[in-house]
This record gives sequence, structure tokens and C-alpha cells, in this order.
Amino acid sequence: MKLDVNVDMGESFGRWKLGDDAGIMPFISSANIACGFHAGDPVNIRETVGHAVEHGVTIGAHVGLPDVLGFGRRRMAIAADELHDMTLYQIGALDAFCRAAGTSVRYVKPHGSLYAMIWESPELADATARAMKGLGLTHLYAITMDQQAVCAAHGVELVQESFVDLWYDANGHLLIERTKQWTDPDLAATRALSLVRDGTLETQGGGTLAVRPQTICIHGDGPNGVDVAKTVRERLEASGVDVAPVVGA
Amino acid sequence: MKLDVNVDMGESFGRWKLGDDAGIMPFISSANIACGFHAGDPVNIRETVGHAVEHGVTIGAHVGLPDVLGFGRRRMAIAADELHDMTLYQIGALDAFCRAAGTSVRYVKPHGSLYAMIWESPELADATARAMKGLGLTHLYAITMDQQAVCAAHGVELVQESFVDLWYDANGHLLIERTKQWTDPDLAATRALSLVRDGTLETQGGGTLAVRPQTICIHGDGPNGVDVAKTVRERLEASGVDVAPVVGA
Amino acid sequence: MKLDVNVDMGESFGRWKLGDDAGIMPFISSANIACGFHAGDPVNIRETVGHAVEHGVTIGAHVGLPDVLGFGRRRMAIAADELHDMTLYQIGALDAFCRAAGTSVRYVKPHGSLYAMIWESPELADATARAMKGLGLTHLYAITMDQQAVCAAHGVELVQESFVDLWYDANGHLLIERTKQWTDPDLAATRALSLVRDGTLETQGGGTLAVRPQTICIHGDGPNGVDVAKTVRERLEASGVDVAPVVGA
Amino acid sequence: MKLDVNVDMGESFGRWKLGDDAGIMPFISSANIACGFHAGDPVNIRETVGHAVEHGVTIGAHVGLPDVLGFGRRRMAIAADELHDMTLYQIGALDAFCRAAGTSVRYVKPHGSLYAMIWESPELADATARAMKGLGLTHLYAITMDQQAVCAAHGVELVQESFVDLWYDANGHLLIERTKQWTDPDLAATRALSLVRDGTLETQGGGTLAVRPQTICIHGDGPNGVDVAKTVRERLEASGVDVAPVVGA
Repeated sequence: MKLDVNVDMGESFGRWKLGDDAGIMPFISSANIACGFHAGDPVNIRETVGHAVEHGVTIGAHVGLPDVLGFGRRRMAIAADELHDMTLYQIGALDAFCRAAGTSVRYVKPHGSLYAMIWESPELADATARAMKGLGLTHLYAITMDQQAVCAAHGVELVQESFVDLWYDANGHLLIERTKQWTDPDLAATRALSLVRDGTLETQGGGTLAVRPQTICIHGDGPNGVDVAKTVRERLEASGVDVAPVVGA
Repeated sequence: MKLDVNVDMGESFGRWKLGDDAGIMPFISSANIACGFHAGDPVNIRETVGHAVEHGVTIGAHVGLPDVLGFGRRRMAIAADELHDMTLYQIGALDAFCRAAGTSVRYVKPHGSLYAMIWESPELADATARAMKGLGLTHLYAITMDQQAVCAAHGVELVQESFVDLWYDANGHLLIERTKQWTDPDLAATRALSLVRDGTLETQGGGTLAVRPQTICIHGDGPNGVDVAKTVRERLEASGVDVAPVVGA
Repeated sequence: MKLDVNVDMGESFGRWKLGDDAGIMPFISSANIACGFHAGDPVNIRETVGHAVEHGVTIGAHVGLPDVLGFGRRRMAIAADELHDMTLYQIGALDAFCRAAGTSVRYVKPHGSLYAMIWESPELADATARAMKGLGLTHLYAITMDQQAVCAAHGVELVQESFVDLWYDANGHLLIERTKQWTDPDLAATRALSLVRDGTLETQGGGTLAVRPQTICIHGDGPNGVDVAKTVRERLEASGVDVAPVVGA
Repeated sequence: MKLDVNVDMGESFGRWKLGDDAGIMPFISSANIACGFHAGDPVNIRETVGHAVEHGVTIGAHVGLPDVLGFGRRRMAIAADELHDMTLYQIGALDAFCRAAGTSVRYVKPHGSLYAMIWESPELADATARAMKGLGLTHLYAITMDQQAVCAAHGVELVQESFVDLWYDANGHLLIERTKQWTDPDLAATRALSLVRDGTLETQGGGTLAVRPQTICIHGDGPNGVDVAKTVRERLEASGVDVAPVVGA
């Protein structure tokens, strides 16, 4: 058995640091690297790509809305063609660092409000899928928010994720915290094991979701993100589950 | 005989238009496309790449300082590594649009104050050459400002340009106008022919520079940029000189 | 009889010019000056304030969404408190130039998507009214989009405008053009006279709206904005209507 | 005896936090608040102004270069008039929040590279002094970098500062750290007492500078900024020195 572990990375900006990219990289298999629209800058991108390459971690483009001040969390009325263009731009910028380091961007994961906007708008979903298709990339997206049709229409591979450091409600909606909280590393690890072995995830009300994601997401900007990633990886490996990239393995 | 004609392109920004990219593209062979740091935005980049592909024009990255408000014309104290990273970022962003359109960025030309900064600083020249080397690109730069050594050190090809719509002084310094003026199309065409046939360029004081550039630059944001480009091409072709890209031909 | 004529001003940005502020200023009585969020920059603001002071034109803050690339025309999910803060920031920035020039900002007019967002959201309308109240300013807003209650609640004076260079439909909705068109100066002047003398405005379908605005808006960024402003003023004055500021007269 | 203690404040930006403004405010008398050019945003400015008003702390505008990514630390070739305009813009933006809170900006202190640029360029020093004069403000600047003449020429009051959490060399040059280090709170307090009682400051080589500043600066973004501010205040007060604002007292 194997499971991919992906984490949002490269979310610092100039003088301002966020997350511990170097600390968390040894424990994961896929890094979603911010591309400068909602966070990240050229220096930070190079450093984060370097950490990923050092640890054999697959690199994905964490594309966001063009809003550094709002960290990509304020919805914006972006036209579909404009989103296509913004997606290409961000992927390409990140990919130049990957190519200079001997690797390449392998997948795309939307960030922040863009994540939900794609879910709600077929036009925006189509626009991002077109951008991925143009560069031959995989779409990493939520298992509870179906994007099978749009990906199939463009011949884009879809890899589905669940989150193990947040609760879901009975309808499969992720309960996002306004401010990142301390996360129980053991609870996250238990969820990861339950997902990979049983294909189930306990919801906040005590119910159970039947989901079998290919990758799980851990948030690196929480106060104990490194501990969570370390514990999840150790518990997975102790249970005979390899932590390995699902794309570009 | 042949000569490359390059023009700065894609210098609009959102609501604000600058230059007539669609109008000028039929007359040139190389387009230096702004990458979003000093001008240009994702939508504009896609459109400009589209015009270039339509007319078989080779695409170069016109990389600039991170200063949209200053149009890349205000010098900034950028560290060499940071410049390397900014150069990679911009090239990559543009290249994604090229790849989606079936082509690729072939060369890099610095913009605005960065042009002179590279000339004056061996460290900055080295940083940009490293970025070009990392992506296998050619350096397009002034024939009067020697970059042979740094390009050779990194195995980067160098293509040299002269300007035909501005005067040089006796020392080979370009006399840059604060505000773009009307340019005499016939004077520009005469200069182009003199360069390609005789390897000479008349200076403002009436002297002569001996230069034999592989490419000539025309400014597209002047009030009659299209006329200048059209006249230059017609006069070159009428004299048996092909206008053809020097890189990626 | 008198009528105020207001025009959006200061919408250039760095290298990019938009509108002819110096050309239009002699014909108007109120200038809505962009504050740097959707357009405008410190140098441009100083110059535009200078033109306004020279011609005795009252100055208002044309506040917008924080989106230069989108020119404030892409809706953004801004929280009410955040909008309050952005409004204060923009007014204050502009007001410093007014104070240094011996005058002050007298009113606030929202720009672009923010205009409609305030109309649709009581919370956002309240937030902007609070910001105006904090600085003792008047609200300039559409006569067809009622803001009486929120202004009264905060003790903010409301001045209402109609547009004379665009059509309204039968429901009082302004028919905004995607790209600014040539405007018939005589039609605009006829509308202005009809508004001030009869309190009526002909709609696109041939019907009539009963509206008596204190100010009319002309768009300065159209291809013939100066002509429209000049014609409107001349026709108004020839008919005995003074063009005079409604705020700060 | 009394001494002013000033600290740079409001240097967070959107999602990214820097410094502990609320924690440090009780111990100081003057807050240099970032205005959005190098750091700070409207929401953050309002909150920081609120903390200052709550603790009776005088507010100054910490104006910087227009470079959020570079935190105002990369020199830029700004023309004198442009700097004047940027200074006005920033002061005004901050002042709107002060006015809405019943106070006003009282002084101006440059940030980062701008601090040194003003020292080195009479034209830039003149431009900032003009901006302060236009709004009737005081200039807070280093006691070791003479600005008496330019301030006197414009009728601008000058208040001079020394730093107590960094070393000076024998020539009065501040030894700035690339990365903020832990600072010995007792050493900072000893320096403060030496300055106010004896008018002396020990330099790194063991020598002594004769300086009698009206205000001392503590850096709030160091790892133990709150401790330093608290210790300095307690030691000053225990020695009979009031910590009180020098401007607007």
C-alpha cells in the first residue's frame, strides 16, 4: 500500500515568513508550491524547489488569485479566459525553476478561494483544465468535489485528495478554520490510516464518509505542521504504507 | 543578406494600452515580450504570443525590474541571486504561453534600467547569463556594450543589436529620449541598410561607428512605430535584404 | 439654475496615460480623482489636484477596489470593515495632496465594481458611509440607486448624479459599454438640459425617467471626452444654467 | 528628566504578521506606523492606530519606498519630486485613520533604504522636508546624520534619535544586522540611561559618542522586542526618567 502526502509550500513573501518548508519537506511526497500570485516570490520559489528536489518530492503548482494582500482568499470575478492565462503564467514561472533544477512541474492544485470557485463554476473549471492540458499536467483536487467530467473532457489526469488535519461535516464539506489551530498529530495519522486501509473518514458528527483518496493534504502553516507531517509519515510507514508521490513517481 | 528586426512588445497593462502590437507584428522578425514585471499581464501575454506565432515571429523574453509603476525604469538595488531568480521567473511565465501555442522562448533581452545595470555590474551580468544557461537561451544585447566574456563563460550564445530609431553619440552611447518622439521612417531605414551593407552607423556628431549587428531594434511605443517598422522592412527587402529571425530561424 | 458636472480623473498609472485631465478640467465643476487603488499614482494625483485647484474645481475621492490590473472592475469579496479601512486610506492619501495645495477632499464617489457592490450590500454601504462620516465628507452616488437611508443613518450628506453620455433602460439601469465609445456631444448636452430644466431623462426604449440630479457625470476616458464636456458646458451656460460645484461651493 | 521611546510598528502585511504591536505599545511613547508602501495595509493600520490611541502613544508616519516585496530595503532611483509625492501620499493615508480616531500624524520617520538615501542626497532630503512642511509635521531622524540645515530651510522641526538595541561604530555609523538578533534588554536599558543622563553612547570598539537624542529607537521586530521595550521603560522610570512623547506631548 502507498499514499501520497501533499503540503502547501513556499507561502512566504519577501520579509515575511510562513510555514517551515525545510522542516516539513523530509516527511512528504508532493509539494504544492505557491507561484507568486497569492504568496511566494522568485527567491522563495527557488529555495523551495531546491528543498523539494533534495528530498525527491514531486512539485506541483499551487496557483492562486492575483491578490497577495488577500492571500488569494478573497473571491474575485475573474473571467474564464483570464483564469486560463493566470494559470499558465503561474505554472510557467514555477516550472522555470524546476527545469533549471533538472525536474518539472507535474501537477496543479488551486489555492484558497480559487479552489471553491472552480468547484462552483464549470467555466472556470474548464479554463483551468485547458491550462493543464496545454502543458500536460495532472489536476490535484478534492475527492469530495467532483471534477471527473471536466478533466476527462480535456484528457487531464485527476488525482483526488482528502484533508487529515481538518474535520469534514456529514455532507463532505471541509470545515475550514479562520485561523490555523494546533492539530492533533495522532488524530491526523489515524485519519490517514483509515483512508488508505479502509477508505473511510470519520466526520465531525460521528458519521463516516466513504472516500479513497490517492493523496492526503496536511497544512504546513499551522503551529505544529512539522509534527503533524512527521507523525503521519511515521505511523503510515509503521503500518506498512509507503509515502510516495502519486504523480511522477 | 539578412537582418533581424526586433521590437519590444506586450507593454500594455490591464486597462492601459501601449503600442500597437498587432499592427507592428507583420513587419518584424523577433518580438521581445514583456513578462509582467515592468509591463504586461497574463491576458496581454497570451494575445501578443498569438500575434507572434501568427506571423512566424521569434519570441524573446523582455525581462525587467519588478516595478510596474516605474515601468522598469527606476534602478533598484537587486542582489545578483535575486536577479537570477527574477529572470527565471519571467522567462518561465512567458514560456508557458509559448509552449501552449506550440513554440518556445528563444532568447532574453533585458528592459529599461536593467539593461544598463547588467552592463555596469559583472555580478548582475553573470546572474542573468546563468538564468539563460539554465534554460538554454540566447542573450540579445547591445553591440556597443560588450557581453562576450560573460556569455562565453556560461556557454550562452550572444546576439548583438543596434537601434535605428535613436541617435548614438561618438562613444557609442545611445541617446535615449525621455518621451518617445516621432521618428523619421526613412532615416531609420537608411540606418538599417547602412548597418547591414556597410557595417556603419552615423553618429549624432556626424562621425561613424563601425558596427555590424545581427539584429536591429525599433521602438514600438513611439507615435509612429508601425510606420517605422513598415518602412524599414520595405526598404530592406527592396534592397535584397531578408528580414528574418537570427535566433530560432 | 445651476448644475454640477463631475468627471472621473487621474486614471493614468505610471507610464500609461488615460484621459485628458488637463484638457477637460476647464469645463467641469467636480473632479473625482483616483486614489491609487484602481488607478492613479502619487505623481499623477499631485498633477491632477493641481489642475483642479487651478480651475476652481471641487475635489472628490474616487475610491476603488485594490486591483490596479483589473482597474477596479473585477468584483472582490471585501469584508465590510476592510472596505471601511480601504476607503479611509484612499481618501486620506488624496487629501494630503489637497491640503498641501490649500484645499481638501469634499466628497467620495465609488469607482467601478465597488459602485455596484455598495448598491447591493447594505453592509458595504454602511462601511463606506462610516468612513465618510469619520472625515466629514459627502457621498456622491447614483440618483437611480437609493442610498438615502444609509447616509441619513450616519449623518452623511448625499448628492445624486445621472450620467449624460450613456443610455439608461426603462428601469433606470445604466447601460455600460464594455469599451468606451464616441459620444454625441449634442445628445449629452440635450440630456443635461432636460435633467436640469425638466427633471426628465429619455431612456433607450423611448420612455422617460423622472430624475432631478444635483450633478451629472461625463466620462473623461472616452475618445471625445473633452468635446463632450465642452459642449455640455457651453449649452448649459447658453441656456442660463451655471456649471458650479454642488459640494463645497 | 524625560525621554521619548519610538518603535517601528504596523509592519505586518495581510496574512503575514511581523512584530507584536499590541504587546509593545504599553511601553513606548511614539509609534512609527508603516503606511502601506514597504509594509502595512489598511486593516493593519487601523488596528495599530487603535493600539496607539489606547495607550496615549504619539503617531508618526513611517514612510518607505514603494516596494512591499523588498520591504523598502532595496534602494530605488526615485526622483525628488516623486519622493515628495510618495511621502505626502503615505502620510495622508495614515492620517485619515488618525483623524477618524480623534488624533493626527505628528511626525515623519523614513524607513529602510530611504533613511540612508535622504542622508546621502540633498535633493531627496529637501523633497521629504517639503512634504512635511506642507502638512506641518516634525522630522524624526538620526542624531548622527545631520539634517538641521534642510529642516531649518523649510521651517520643519527636527527631533533626533539614537538606537539602543544596535551597536554604533567609532564614526557614529549604525551597525545594522542582516537578520534581527536577540537583544540584551539590560544593555539596551543601560544605553538609554547613559544617553539621557550623560549624553554618551558606548561604541563597539569601546569608545564613546557624545550624543543627546530626544528620542531612542527600539526595534519591535526582533525576537524579544517586547522584553527590550519593557526593560528599557522600567529601568528609565526606576531612574526617574519619564518616558514621554517629544512631539505632541
